[in-house]
Amino acid sequence: MIIEGKNAVIESLKGDITIEKVMFLKSAPNSNFDSIITLCKEQNIPYNFLDKYALDRISPTGKHQGVLAFGTDFVYSELDDLLVKKDNEYLLLILLDGIEDPHNLGAIVRVADCVGANGIIISKHRCCGVTDTAIKVSSGACSYVKIAKVNNLNDTIRDLKEKGIFVYATDMAGESIYKTNLCGDIAIVIGSEGEGVHTLTQKLSDATISLPQKGKINSLNASVATGVVLYECLRQRSK
Amino acid sequence: MIIEGKNAVIESLKGDITIEKVMFLKSAPNSNFDSIITLCKEQNIPYNFLDKYALDRISPTGKHQGVLAFGTDFVYSELDDLLVKKDNEYLLLILLDGIEDPHNLGAIVRVADCVGANGIIISKHRCCGVTDTAIKVSSGACSYVKIAKVNNLNDTIRDLKEKGIFVYATDMAGESIYKTNLCGDIAIVIGSEGEGVHTLTQKLSDATISLPQKGKINSLNASVATGVVLYECLRQRSK
Repeated sequence: MIIEGKNAVIESLKGDITIEKVMFLKSAPNSNFDSIITLCKEQNIPYNFLDKYALDRISPTGKHQGVLAFGTDFVYSELDDLLVKKDNEYLLLILLDGIEDPHNLGAIVRVADCVGANGIIISKHRCCGVTDTAIKVSSGACSYVKIAKVNNLNDTIRDLKEKGIFVYATDMAGESIYKTNLCGDIAIVIGSEGEGVHTLTQKLSDATISLPQKGKINSLNASVATGVVLYECLRQRSK
Repeated sequence: MIIEGKNAVIESLKGDITIEKVMFLKSAPNSNFDSIITLCKEQNIPYNFLDKYALDRISPTGKHQGVLAFGTDFVYSELDDLLVKKDNEYLLLILLDGIEDPHNLGAIVRVADCVGANGIIISKHRCCGVTDTAIKVSSGACSYVKIAKVNNLNDTIRDLKEKGIFVYATDMAGESIYKTNLCGDIAIVIGSEGEGVHTLTQKLSDATISLPQKGKINSLNASVATGVVLYECLRQRSK
């Protein structure tokens, strides 16, 4: 796994991902990377300097900003790790049912970090995994947000319900988030932009919630919709 | 300007963009495009059928989904067009100060549509324009949301303030949106992900607002942040 860009490399070095090696652009001013070099030294991680041609060749996206790191593959959490309460706060879980774009996944991980969610559960067969692109887009949030991968999202929903967690599916036909009590231990299922939450998954959920819409198209990007719903949870819980 | 994909073409045909010609994939089932063909006939717009090779060559992104349309370039609105109140509701304007990614712009246009904002004002030299990519990502919302382009965003802010519109800049150091009254005629300035709102622009604004952050990275995608702020406006105004 290659992590690119100054912020993403710093956050990966500070987080749980194991970094094997860091490579810098030879011609960049050294002071740019002082903080990264310090982290490498502290953790005994080897690093070296390459010319632009070599770095560009290694870079999957070409946007390395002068630094990239080789890390081991992303380590998923176990579902149980996501069910540990922080400071006795209510649980807040995000279930992804059909997010295929790693850019959307990365943006959703950033939201999960910002609102202090307990973690993200992704469906193995319906979602993209935590790819290099998702990690890069997440700006390092993938190092902090717990992400579990499950074989069958419906089984997981049954499991969460048994544990007393209330499961909301998001759908245009649902009750407005502003009329819904989002406190308590809850999980929110986010569907794909095209198809939404699968029918059976929606039926299994305890209730359905939606965002009010005042427009002509009334279609939000999946990560934007996730942001609005999760921030409403945060608002209600902070009252 | 080339518009690609079934939904984007339909919305463009229904909206203000002038469509010159529509092209379909010859091998696709005709019934797929019945609604588009009906719109073309109603508006006297010529259309024809091409094989996949020809369509792929014309398609800028390769994701035409079997249909693409040639439209005239996006027509920006005049600033004054954005200041017309809808049904006596408070004005809600979005000012973009440094959004360079057309994917982010497209997602922000979708938000503006969903919350019924009066329009988006983009800075000519600091923002990307309404490109084909932005139009595609906006899922057709660019046909409905008024977008004005201005030479100098700071001059526009002075102008809006003179007209009695309260201007909020978004910044990490600002007051929480949940502690701010977002009713009244307001404009919200969104900065770039890297640099935020420019210092002078922030100083010119009447006040600064922020999203509460509970994470380690605390960095949201610009379109996600815009979605959360605008939906909070909608929530407060609906009370």
